[in-house]
Amino acid sequence: MTGKPRRIEANLEYLRKLFIMPDSPDKFIEFGNELLEMIHDFFQEKGGIHSAITLPELSRIFDRTSVPEGPHLIKDVLGEIKSKVIDHSVKVGSPHYIGHMTSAIPYFMILLEMIIAALNQNQVKIETAKASSFVERELIAWMHRLVFCRTDRFYEKNIQNPRVALGNVTSDGTLANFTAFLVAREKAFPPDGDFPGLRVAGVGRALRHYGYTRGVVLVSARGHYSIRKAANLLGLGEENVITVPVDGQNRMDIKKLERRVRRLQEGRDGERSKIIAVVGIAGTTETGNIDDLEAVGGIAAEAGAHFHVDACWGGSALLVEEYRHLFRGIERADSVSIDAHKLLYCPMSMGVVLFRNERDLNTIRHSSRYIIRRNSVDTGRFTVEGSRPFASLKPWAALKIIGREGYGLLFRHAKETTDAFREMLETCGNFEILNHPELFILNYRFIPAEVRDRLGAWLDERAGAKERNRARELEGRIKKVNTIVNALNVKLHKALRTDDTTFVSRTTLESTRYRPQSIVVLRAVLINPLTDRTALDTVMATQNRLGLELWPEFRTAYVRMAGSEGGEA
Amino acid sequence: MTGKPRRIEANLEYLRKLFIMPDSPDKFIEFGNELLEMIHDFFQEKGGIHSAITLPELSRIFDRTSVPEGPHLIKDVLGEIKSKVIDHSVKVGSPHYIGHMTSAIPYFMILLEMIIAALNQNQVKIETAKASSFVERELIAWMHRLVFCRTDRFYEKNIQNPRVALGNVTSDGTLANFTAFLVAREKAFPPDGDFPGLRVAGVGRALRHYGYTRGVVLVSARGHYSIRKAANLLGLGEENVITVPVDGQNRMDIKKLERRVRRLQEGRDGERSKIIAVVGIAGTTETGNIDDLEAVGGIAAEAGAHFHVDACWGGSALLVEEYRHLFRGIERADSVSIDAHKLLYCPMSMGVVLFRNERDLNTIRHSSRYIIRRNSVDTGRFTVEGSRPFASLKPWAALKIIGREGYGLLFRHAKETTDAFREMLETCGNFEILNHPELFILNYRFIPAEVRDRLGAWLDERAGAKERNRARELEGRIKKVNTIVNALNVKLHKALRTDDTTFVSRTTLESTRYRPQSIVVLRAVLINPLTDRTALDTVMATQNRLGLELWPEFRTAYVRMAGSEGGEA
Repeated sequence: MTGKPRRIEANLEYLRKLFIMPDSPDKFIEFGNELLEMIHDFFQEKGGIHSAITLPELSRIFDRTSVPEGPHLIKDVLGEIKSKVIDHSVKVGSPHYIGHMTSAIPYFMILLEMIIAALNQNQVKIETAKASSFVERELIAWMHRLVFCRTDRFYEKNIQNPRVALGNVTSDGTLANFTAFLVAREKAFPPDGDFPGLRVAGVGRALRHYGYTRGVVLVSARGHYSIRKAANLLGLGEENVITVPVDGQNRMDIKKLERRVRRLQEGRDGERSKIIAVVGIAGTTETGNIDDLEAVGGIAAEAGAHFHVDACWGGSALLVEEYRHLFRGIERADSVSIDAHKLLYCPMSMGVVLFRNERDLNTIRHSSRYIIRRNSVDTGRFTVEGSRPFASLKPWAALKIIGREGYGLLFRHAKETTDAFREMLETCGNFEILNHPELFILNYRFIPAEVRDRLGAWLDERAGAKERNRARELEGRIKKVNTIVNALNVKLHKALRTDDTTFVSRTTLESTRYRPQSIVVLRAVLINPLTDRTALDTVMATQNRLGLELWPEFRTAYVRMAGSEGGEA
Repeated sequence: MTGKPRRIEANLEYLRKLFIMPDSPDKFIEFGNELLEMIHDFFQEKGGIHSAITLPELSRIFDRTSVPEGPHLIKDVLGEIKSKVIDHSVKVGSPHYIGHMTSAIPYFMILLEMIIAALNQNQVKIETAKASSFVERELIAWMHRLVFCRTDRFYEKNIQNPRVALGNVTSDGTLANFTAFLVAREKAFPPDGDFPGLRVAGVGRALRHYGYTRGVVLVSARGHYSIRKAANLLGLGEENVITVPVDGQNRMDIKKLERRVRRLQEGRDGERSKIIAVVGIAGTTETGNIDDLEAVGGIAAEAGAHFHVDACWGGSALLVEEYRHLFRGIERADSVSIDAHKLLYCPMSMGVVLFRNERDLNTIRHSSRYIIRRNSVDTGRFTVEGSRPFASLKPWAALKIIGREGYGLLFRHAKETTDAFREMLETCGNFEILNHPELFILNYRFIPAEVRDRLGAWLDERAGAKERNRARELEGRIKKVNTIVNALNVKLHKALRTDDTTFVSRTTLESTRYRPQSIVVLRAVLINPLTDRTALDTVMATQNRLGLELWPEFRTAYVRMAGSEGGEA
């Protein structure tokens, strides 16, 4: 399986044979085995997480600007995939890769993908997707029940009732959120007399009809970027996503939300604003924290706005009773989005969006005369996407194979891993923890113990300072030190990428104990069941070693700045 | 692999092992083999295309309303998938299934899906997708060149230039079209002085700023329903998709398009309309016909509108030189969408949208501080979707394995199959062909020879009729007969679904030789390389047999209506 692909002669009989699952699957199995070995080797391989190759080098490998002419042997092309693609892929399943929400997946997922591809159902329409349409609805009912806990009767009536949809399977969380806002927008500007509703009339006519100048969406400063994107796509405008600050736990500040809503309702900004939706977050992307959903939901209800919960990250934790209390109030949401490729451990990519009211998705129902007819049972009537794969088989089967109990064990392991890493970082001394992890995401930074202690002392002193000048001076010092430590952590993150034996990600938070100053933080997502204490040791040791190596560059500036109070440190 | 799944004890060690690609892949291979056999049997199986099970029966199989508690053996769950899911799936790969654009796929696609799942790259970001980001860009360059034929220099410069994107990989054609309109909308209402552009300001403010009351999109009556859907999603409003009638070949009527554009520009409808986009279709979903892209593009350019070509169906035919002339003018498009799961024979689902101008996608570029940073090389900066699978590997590898020459042979086979079926239907006598197939889609209906001949005679007579009354009488008769034949074909289509040994789809066209009367037509999509003359014989014989069985029910009405002129028929 190596060398340059050999061109072969084009021949219809050969091509037709490619379309037939072989009578004896020997050939297929032979390729399958080789593939499995390739994949196995890739995961076992020591060395870099991202492969040492540089991006310019990759540019030169993939620089062919026109389609290949002749057919090439499958064997050769698989060999090319091995040497050019697999060898230079990111080992997202590595126990040392704890930087993104992309984790290891159970190997049975590969079997499920084989089934999905072989069946090649198109979920848009019952004529191209029979049992699979029912599987999808069953999965949606399970997830709906997890979130909204409605009655047995409700689910028995609606699980396979083609006149309604309890939710959609979407290609990812961005489209799940988007679908929720699409429904919210329609409900905010419904048909009214001669006015046929926003979907028919458009945003411009809808605003004119209802006497508004804009429609807005409120979300905390931790909101995912897909929310701003959705406001763009929907024609609401990115500027009409109103960001509410968070508290020190990365939760939406409820008082500020209330004030913002009042300001909007009173038109104090010179606009007549229709509040389309208020968003609660159940597991922020950066910090894993969860809004006070009960309070956010209460305010949304009072404002007559759609209450959407972005639970793309955390929603699956509802599978486990001990996490339920964190989500209190989610059952009052109008819609909730959850990603299957995150805490359900499915491969890329699949989201779901669920609507408490089983009739909500009817507001965006559509039909055409050659496909998804009005009175059909076609799933495509309710979706943003058209053609869709049978992706729902993966979480459906995973929920059977792993079960609620199994997910309970996986999440407990994730929590223990998060706690262990936190403790290790604290014990080491050269790190500072910067969030209160709720759902397996830890924010921290490298900071030499001396500096950390000095900052701590200043913070304490400032809190108790009676003299205003002294408090201001301390604040100035703290800011300057943080600026230095920010630069250090940016550089450390680059050094970690160059070292490439471990991986965490990096972001900037204004909500740490130094708020409102923006702090550069490292971000660990600790959900890989293969990440054990040894892996964590390696991750921490690497960061500590590289951090200490880099520190001297920054120390001079620190010493100069800290002056008499920090000079000897 | 049968029986009820057995619940097993939840145990972390067992679960962790699921996440490890086995050292010796024996277990995996064992499951893999069983699966392959299952899938093989499913395809070999005689009997119905859709399985005989009724929808209410399926409802009862998938009626479990809450998530399973304990883990279950993989073996058992796979057994359940076999008996409940695979056995009741639609055999879209069957040579007798010629009703939708979902065809057989080459079996190597299953191997590619294994690789994609095992690597589990997330295309949103280079940190989660390294070589795969470059593969995607290479594929996009190939497709871009097929369509726009720009210079070597252009492709060498841009193929891996992270500051621009020549196009996006999307989850399907609907999102490809949607992305094109998103860019078109932004270009129609760009930043201007204090006005920050539509994406920031929203549709309402954009219309006010530029002094329009609405933005419109023009497309022919054959336009895909996703275009109306996109107008809804984008806040333009479904009523602002303006449908231009087609000629007898299902091509947009250019004169009518010109008149419509002029009317809009002159504001004769009492609106101030901004023409955002004019759409040409390269392979209509219902009939496979291609607009006169040169003429449509010319009018779009004159109107200063974005020219989008929906080539989701037909675009891949550009791989083959002999089809190129059908698409003349496509190289002047601003954007073009093509589906990989249609004529590239990839599994569900993947689309691409390509922009002639390499800077167009920058109008919708976005960033965030924890992912897809502004100066990054992340693909996610340009896409509507967020998390995305490495779907591009499939068409990328298929274009190598099959090659342009191989696709040439497949399309030639599709054309010969279409011609052969057309000829067979004409020879039989009880069918009437109702379109001029260009890209492997045939529209026809069942109509007993006597009725077909009578209608033909009336049409001829009407064309030459000097007496106005006689012409009107003939027209009335033709209409009534067509109404009867429409009902017959609806019923025949239902009977075919019940018989279930073959499958074609059904739609309604106003563009046949009976236009403007709506005619119910059967629709065959003839792209499966396994569909041979024997399969076509079976399809036609079944339709003829069932049609003739149903005809007596309708004949009485026909005889009564046709009166003295048709009575003896």
